[in-house]
Amino acid sequence: MTEKSEEAVEICRTVADLGARVAKWRREGLTVGLIPTMGALHAGHISLVDAALSHYDRAVATLFVNPRQFDRPGDLAAYPRTEDDDAQKLGLAGAHLLYAPHATEMYPQGYATNVSVSGVSAGLCGGDRPGHFDGVATVCSKLFLQSGADGAFFGEKDYQQLQVVRRFVSDLNIPITIHACQTIREADGLALSSRNKRLTAAQRAIAPQMHQIMVEAVPALQANGDVSALLNEAAASIKAAGFDSVDYIDFRDTKTLVPLDQAGKQPARLFAAAWLGDVRLIDNIPV
Amino acid sequence: MTEKSEEAVEICRTVADLGARVAKWRREGLTVGLIPTMGALHAGHISLVDAALSHYDRAVATLFVNPRQFDRPGDLAAYPRTEDDDAQKLGLAGAHLLYAPHATEMYPQGYATNVSVSGVSAGLCGGDRPGHFDGVATVCSKLFLQSGADGAFFGEKDYQQLQVVRRFVSDLNIPITIHACQTIREADGLALSSRNKRLTAAQRAIAPQMHQIMVEAVPALQANGDVSALLNEAAASIKAAGFDSVDYIDFRDTKTLVPLDQAGKQPARLFAAAWLGDVRLIDNIPV
Repeated sequence: MTEKSEEAVEICRTVADLGARVAKWRREGLTVGLIPTMGALHAGHISLVDAALSHYDRAVATLFVNPRQFDRPGDLAAYPRTEDDDAQKLGLAGAHLLYAPHATEMYPQGYATNVSVSGVSAGLCGGDRPGHFDGVATVCSKLFLQSGADGAFFGEKDYQQLQVVRRFVSDLNIPITIHACQTIREADGLALSSRNKRLTAAQRAIAPQMHQIMVEAVPALQANGDVSALLNEAAASIKAAGFDSVDYIDFRDTKTLVPLDQAGKQPARLFAAAWLGDVRLIDNIPV
Repeated sequence: MTEKSEEAVEICRTVADLGARVAKWRREGLTVGLIPTMGALHAGHISLVDAALSHYDRAVATLFVNPRQFDRPGDLAAYPRTEDDDAQKLGLAGAHLLYAPHATEMYPQGYATNVSVSGVSAGLCGGDRPGHFDGVATVCSKLFLQSGADGAFFGEKDYQQLQVVRRFVSDLNIPITIHACQTIREADGLALSSRNKRLTAAQRAIAPQMHQIMVEAVPALQANGDVSALLNEAAASIKAAGFDSVDYIDFRDTKTLVPLDQAGKQPARLFAAAWLGDVRLIDNIPV
């Protein structure tokens, strides 16, 4: 029986170390999948590791709580940090490496470059969190290029982020394949999120109702109901369920994220974001 | 004796074709240098090809008159386009490939990503040409990643551009080495530029005086003269020489491009931009 500490995945901290390890694997003919995370790993992240291992020879997770993608300093400070636990979980999942750089390694003195994406980053979380998707696009560009990985894995739970990543990877010709994995949920439907840990017991009891209300709205949308009225109803239901406020509930094209006023014409998804105390939860489902 | 047409370098038009050719070379163990240009090639560009051939096994020039880096539609329309002639010159210089994509290949429908650099892009040409360096950083990011080249070559004539490129390559961890080559000049000191072709005979006679006035300002700057007064004097001299207006004459740190009010403390350069009719000429020299 091995010690717990022996199960934790190996950690590297520098761009040079990461690049050298991946380059060595590639010289050996091995392919590499990347799983960018901000840590506080849950079963959703582990499903991305599983997917990476099914597509590639090596799975590299990254852990970086990226200050550039937080629009509120309080949210950055409160974001859970559980590196030792994360390294254990990754080891048990069979990941081969954890890249956990310090902020000065990612943004050394004099750092001055920003990657921004228009279109898919407008509205939804992009409207509520100014600069958020610039931060995501910038840090993911760096992680893809630092690692030289063949593929990278993202959850559909952060669906707008996934579309932003696909957009800039295609636009900047970054040689990496983007893989999307389905949202992992609790038994009661709540989408797994590192922020769920910050919910009180009372908030946790309310939380799954956002997803339930979204699911219940789908048949009426599909039956070609009045989109605007249905969204207003759903928002009222989310507030009535006990959420403190609703940032948005929106019906959009699956790929371009353009708002739709009618179902059935093209693949579409329903998106929502709402607050329980100082915790902002998001979700999205296909319609 | 070979036909002229046989001397022209081979041209490719698509990202896929470029990527496949470079990947093949790299599989054969060959290294690749890139020379990004907007065409209308002169001896300055050819010096970059020579430098690429001295550092790498294969030299790939690119020709793309990038609409995103032109702030004035008239300048874009008037920019010289001489592809056949360029391909001949590159063939004679020993380049191995010319990548000349159409605009729709570089910016297909739905394109939405921008790379921007703060700091070094402020002031000088960045102040006079809004969006110019975003366009440069974006298109160069794409060319570097499309080609997968080992190194890329830039002239010091566009010195601010060189610093912008160095900055985003370092910041985004793009795996390419940036090489700088000295400005190539006519016998009378005029820096070679594709825009020189647009000068009338009378303007061409005036043009070299900007460089001459800059050179003459150096001893006084080095002797710790009043920087602001010396720059004002030089600007007045450029106008008196017959230039229609002066965009800037500026004394700045070689690396950060921060304006300096004193010489001798750090490596510095003198920068100028001025107009002859509708042609804007730039130059810079070490102090």
